[in-house]
Amino acid sequence: MINERDAILVLNAGSSSIKFELFEVAGAPVARFAGQVEGIGAAPHFVAKDAAGARLADRRWDDGGAPANHRAALGVIIDWLDGVLAGRRVAAIGHRVVHGGPDLAAPVLVDVAVMERLRELAPLAPLHQPHNLAGIAAAAERFPGVPQVACFDTAFHRAHAWEADTFALPPEFYARGIRRYGFHGLSYEYIARRLAEEDPALAAGRVVVAHLGNGASLCAMHGGRSVDSTMGFTALDGVPMGTRSGQIDPGVLLHLLGTEGLALQDVQKLLYGNAGLKGMSGISQDVRDLEASDDPRAAQALSHFCWRVRREVGALAAALGGIDALVFTAGIGENARGIRARVCEGLGFLGIAVDPERNAANAPVISPPGAATRVLVRQTDEEGMIARHVLDLLRRSNKA
Amino acid sequence: MINERDAILVLNAGSSSIKFELFEVAGAPVARFAGQVEGIGAAPHFVAKDAAGARLADRRWDDGGAPANHRAALGVIIDWLDGVLAGRRVAAIGHRVVHGGPDLAAPVLVDVAVMERLRELAPLAPLHQPHNLAGIAAAAERFPGVPQVACFDTAFHRAHAWEADTFALPPEFYARGIRRYGFHGLSYEYIARRLAEEDPALAAGRVVVAHLGNGASLCAMHGGRSVDSTMGFTALDGVPMGTRSGQIDPGVLLHLLGTEGLALQDVQKLLYGNAGLKGMSGISQDVRDLEASDDPRAAQALSHFCWRVRREVGALAAALGGIDALVFTAGIGENARGIRARVCEGLGFLGIAVDPERNAANAPVISPPGAATRVLVRQTDEEGMIARHVLDLLRRSNKA
Repeated sequence: MINERDAILVLNAGSSSIKFELFEVAGAPVARFAGQVEGIGAAPHFVAKDAAGARLADRRWDDGGAPANHRAALGVIIDWLDGVLAGRRVAAIGHRVVHGGPDLAAPVLVDVAVMERLRELAPLAPLHQPHNLAGIAAAAERFPGVPQVACFDTAFHRAHAWEADTFALPPEFYARGIRRYGFHGLSYEYIARRLAEEDPALAAGRVVVAHLGNGASLCAMHGGRSVDSTMGFTALDGVPMGTRSGQIDPGVLLHLLGTEGLALQDVQKLLYGNAGLKGMSGISQDVRDLEASDDPRAAQALSHFCWRVRREVGALAAALGGIDALVFTAGIGENARGIRARVCEGLGFLGIAVDPERNAANAPVISPPGAATRVLVRQTDEEGMIARHVLDLLRRSNKA
Repeated sequence: MINERDAILVLNAGSSSIKFELFEVAGAPVARFAGQVEGIGAAPHFVAKDAAGARLADRRWDDGGAPANHRAALGVIIDWLDGVLAGRRVAAIGHRVVHGGPDLAAPVLVDVAVMERLRELAPLAPLHQPHNLAGIAAAAERFPGVPQVACFDTAFHRAHAWEADTFALPPEFYARGIRRYGFHGLSYEYIARRLAEEDPALAAGRVVVAHLGNGASLCAMHGGRSVDSTMGFTALDGVPMGTRSGQIDPGVLLHLLGTEGLALQDVQKLLYGNAGLKGMSGISQDVRDLEASDDPRAAQALSHFCWRVRREVGALAAALGGIDALVFTAGIGENARGIRARVCEGLGFLGIAVDPERNAANAPVISPPGAATRVLVRQTDEEGMIARHVLDLLRRSNKA
């Protein structure tokens, strides 16, 4: 049962951080507080803000007593939340979970059986899934009896046709789960719902969404449903990212491991942690740093990034049979006007153009008036999408 | 010095075969005889035909005496050619060589220094380069003093901008040769020259060429120059092929090698030899077999292949900033009307359409009259391109 003014807590547990956002139920979920403990296991740092972005807490543990693991870090968050909840009840907790496997196409209430099933998927996302599940375990311990809801980055893509869901491998690989799952699904779903509210005709059409953040992918949507995405089996696929290579000739891996004799874990570290914008530039994974730099490698890294994103816009337009709108979202997509302009350069044949003034203002519509294909900028809200899922699921189970 | 009625021999030495084509110099090179020894090292089979396709020789060695290596196989070819050369001189020999490395952007006369340089590139193409070089060595031994010319599959792509030449890796990888070389360059160059002769205005524009054979890639050309290609560091990249996976999430390789513990050589065998159309279908690598099959896996394999090629047409159109023509070539491209039609399905937004009658007839132009983007079918001729290069190079060195 959920009541008005109950709270929904959303948790996003990564390898060394737990992000949280607290929502109040007022018809729809309304964000009230957000923050994170980062640096878990090293030098933890807790920050909390209100919905307007005002900093309410900022704590380090230079004198000892720092939270040593996810459980302890969640304790720090809960202790702080106790003070601001002011007697309101946490009615449910929503968790961002990277992998729902081939079958989980919607959020689920986590019980022991579901937890086991999610644990079995850990080999498909060894860098993320175990931390996501540690977050669920810690929350279940701290909030006994409170519903825990797992929301998956893969769920939104589960209706892909077989052509977009498979690799060109023997069928037994597909059968044992080596598929193109796609990720960033909560972000894409949020954008899809928002477009459907704002402009149902446009949302019914063919939309390419470029989620460009520290992780980056693109999604082709038709009628609000995902048709294809640039990320595949893992979040390493597709366009280059802050520190990840994105798609790379598989022959490069065979060469590095075989002819050059590199160790597998070194190749993994390279492709996940020292490639992408950071690796190409040797300077930073942050677009702002690269834009501010005079180093020619910084310009080259940005140039390659824009080229790859542009290529994928074309590929996804082909997957959709055309394009009615291009939406930029996530950190880079929402803020980096230079990147948006360069991605769109040369895409006039798709009816895509950028109005410099609108683009400079990060306006919601950055294409010129009357453009054949609209180019939009939207702020994504994965936590808000999770809160909405939790609320929907609780309301459905109340009725059932 | 080259004279009219001299002959140019073109050799294409693979892992277990040597293909040859003999050209007569009559202004331009004119193909006279072609054939191959295949099954070298197993059960060799020699076939030779005239330019009209009539079979002039067909030999197996069931009673012993079979050529045991490339040198001996070349001997079989030369012995047969002696009979048809009728006193004409072999003035030069052109070799197809898969890899010219970062710098060789044109055919070269092979001397000892060049041969060493090509040997140093073998680690970049361990499955092909050593066999190509064995062919050169065997020919040099059999034709002492006759110029040997190496023509590279990579050369046509050497003018790619940095964006299309690099992976999103630290600069030291680029510096040590881990680049997007691209392949099938002799085929693309042949198509580019042919278009320039047939229709200079079209050739000056933006053309995507789909070389779809047992190996398959696509090339984006602007003004007859390669701007981008789907193959990268190796011939494993890009679209799926007869037995090759094409591009695949690098995370799949990390998973197979790490989590699943497969051996590197097994992954290499899988991706090169048991993936693609053959792997997906479990039936055949040959499009004709799959089109004739009732097995749903055959239909699925073809469907995925067409989907991936279609996606790359979109990506390359984006790389070019638009598309004026799409050219199909190589075995599948020249003959598989069903594949051509399905690749073009849904590409109407690029002005691409296929006229069913023209397509059924493998006509040179298969788009309907007045189509915004022309869709062409052209027979490629890599051996003819090599012969032309050899002749050009000999004439230039005569003048010098």
